[in-house]
Amino acid sequence: MTDHGNLIKELAITNQSKILFFIMDGIGGLQTATHPGTELELAKTPNLDKLSQKSSCGLLIPAGHGITAGSGPGHFALFGHDPITSNIGRGVLEAAGICFKLTENDVVARGNFSTIDKKGLIVDRRAGRISDRENKRLCKLLNEKINLNDVELFVKPVKGHRFIVVFRASGLEGEISDTDPQKTGVTPLAPQALNPAASNTVEKVKEFINQAALILSTESQANMLTLRGFGKYRNYPTMQEYYKLKSLCLANYPMYRGVCSLLGMDINPITPDIPSQFDALEKKFGTYDFIFLHVKTTDVTGEDGDFKAKVEAIEKLDSYITRLEALNPDVLIITGDHSTPSALKSHSWHPVPVLLHSQYARLDGAKRFTEIECLKGALGQLPAHDLMALSLAHALRLKKFGA
Amino acid sequence: MTDHGNLIKELAITNQSKILFFIMDGIGGLQTATHPGTELELAKTPNLDKLSQKSSCGLLIPAGHGITAGSGPGHFALFGHDPITSNIGRGVLEAAGICFKLTENDVVARGNFSTIDKKGLIVDRRAGRISDRENKRLCKLLNEKINLNDVELFVKPVKGHRFIVVFRASGLEGEISDTDPQKTGVTPLAPQALNPAASNTVEKVKEFINQAALILSTESQANMLTLRGFGKYRNYPTMQEYYKLKSLCLANYPMYRGVCSLLGMDINPITPDIPSQFDALEKKFGTYDFIFLHVKTTDVTGEDGDFKAKVEAIEKLDSYITRLEALNPDVLIITGDHSTPSALKSHSWHPVPVLLHSQYARLDGAKRFTEIECLKGALGQLPAHDLMALSLAHALRLKKFGA
Repeated sequence: MTDHGNLIKELAITNQSKILFFIMDGIGGLQTATHPGTELELAKTPNLDKLSQKSSCGLLIPAGHGITAGSGPGHFALFGHDPITSNIGRGVLEAAGICFKLTENDVVARGNFSTIDKKGLIVDRRAGRISDRENKRLCKLLNEKINLNDVELFVKPVKGHRFIVVFRASGLEGEISDTDPQKTGVTPLAPQALNPAASNTVEKVKEFINQAALILSTESQANMLTLRGFGKYRNYPTMQEYYKLKSLCLANYPMYRGVCSLLGMDINPITPDIPSQFDALEKKFGTYDFIFLHVKTTDVTGEDGDFKAKVEAIEKLDSYITRLEALNPDVLIITGDHSTPSALKSHSWHPVPVLLHSQYARLDGAKRFTEIECLKGALGQLPAHDLMALSLAHALRLKKFGA
Repeated sequence: MTDHGNLIKELAITNQSKILFFIMDGIGGLQTATHPGTELELAKTPNLDKLSQKSSCGLLIPAGHGITAGSGPGHFALFGHDPITSNIGRGVLEAAGICFKLTENDVVARGNFSTIDKKGLIVDRRAGRISDRENKRLCKLLNEKINLNDVELFVKPVKGHRFIVVFRASGLEGEISDTDPQKTGVTPLAPQALNPAASNTVEKVKEFINQAALILSTESQANMLTLRGFGKYRNYPTMQEYYKLKSLCLANYPMYRGVCSLLGMDINPITPDIPSQFDALEKKFGTYDFIFLHVKTTDVTGEDGDFKAKVEAIEKLDSYITRLEALNPDVLIITGDHSTPSALKSHSWHPVPVLLHSQYARLDGAKRFTEIECLKGALGQLPAHDLMALSLAHALRLKKFGA
């Protein structure tokens, strides 16, 4: 939680209002040498434009000026948590994403099956992207054969070459460096304790790697593994506990489902496409206080560096805006978890446009939902982790503070 | 460092990019009864105007709303340090400025030679601005004659009537009040411990003052001294350690050279004027990752309350902007360490215009580099100590945070 997370908890009350978050992943953009405006500026977005004129607009700073937030911190911030202090490893997020039930004795890492040559150098960081079935077989093999004595071990497949490994015992610590060198032609790195308290855990991790290497050595493709994103699981307060919100997650990627699951939201079954995601939204809307609706097309096209495709993704999403409005939520938030400018082909640190639509939103001068128009917005530029309190306030779900 | 200073350290990487800070000291201004605009607004600045239109603009808050920052805190903030928690005494800054090598056992104060009358009342706080030569003679005299037993003492001339005194012993503390009453017609104040831990040190300071007063009593002009800006030296992380930046300081005043020296920057030899300062910049640009270029004319004219002279200083500096651009730095920052409105004849708390030019800067609606146009800027209003992280981000020198 943020510094005043406990205050928000104290002030939160229940009522009949409904809050809807529509998160367009990586929505913020940047002009390029060939494009004089950002993706949002060059997209035709009549519905977002209209909505922005009857909303409070602004810009969210995901994790501090200049900090490029990963999806984990980006989403923790949207849900009201300080993204720096609440940061947990990718392993924990992936585990939550596959609904693996973690305990406070668990240290988790995300793993890749990989291919090494005779000298031990990595030649394929993803072992030729082995099938889910192969992945499952290998995880089962490692799970059955590896023995770490007093440490209980779980190796669970995620997707393709990706898996998680869970080390369970009291006294384990998660501050451990990655073994994935993030490039080929080199050997995997040795795990290192980033905090002296983790040195015993590192020994267990090394033992796991050694035994796994031996077991995998007879495999043709996946003859090695790398680990990254170590972290120790801890309990997070749920959306219900902190905000008194019965919450639903409508996201299809494991990472986002993972974050929502850690925060105790109900997780909707995966929907095959965006239309069916909106169908699910309409079906479930009446039974929840808070719904998180997440789409990824804006981030994927940005990561691909495909400016035109990102513009098209935005235009397509714009056509769904009227369906959000038709539900008449008391508070409708439209924003992203971070920027993903096509110009950078990656997440970036740039603030993210945000729109808050509510009967009680102060109207401002913003005429469009763009990075620059939102500078005129009533919300100003604010830390993303303050958005949740603003949403509760506009839903009249926060009591007055003090006499 | 800021709260997330350690995070920035973790995320910082090296690459070939170059960051250039051009600091116009005290650049922010204010309209007056006779001038309808600020100094920046009334100055003709075609080059700054053009540059602002292809940059992200904004306003820096040096040390918090309403806080008038001194040059020390102002510059610590620009270099990414929290100006409140990183604040150190003027003594330490002056010592660093004359390249006196401090240790962590040192408490330092800045001193003035002064003139008192027969009753002990101060008649001249600067002892008639004695010469550097006189200063040197007197410092040598005090250094040789004063004996503080277990405390090692260094009295070193700075310039004119100004000197530093260094008390060296383990267990000394720097939280001591000034003896300089900042006015004439009164006696110097007795030093007081602002924290009980400093009471032993205060005794040593009193002993120093008593012995010095006796030694100086036969002098005609400098027959007394006052001390202010006490502080204990501590090690700061260098620009290299924190940001992985090989850094050069191109500043001619001891105070700024002092700050840079504390942060481990290379200090360029003093240049006689602004043209030669820019010559040095062009010569050294290729061999550094980060260059801090500081000019003082905007502050001096503001302190003088000379509105017209400040406008002229700005117009003169504007003619150098194209030389900065010609170097093609990956990130060019133009700003100040605080405002110095001619209307106030002193530093002020008003936010300071800032411009960030980079290929990855989000363009905004600011048409000029002025206090009001910068309000339209993409950077918004932000703490000055966040500027360094933003600069590193735009230079692509910060890794993504979290998965």
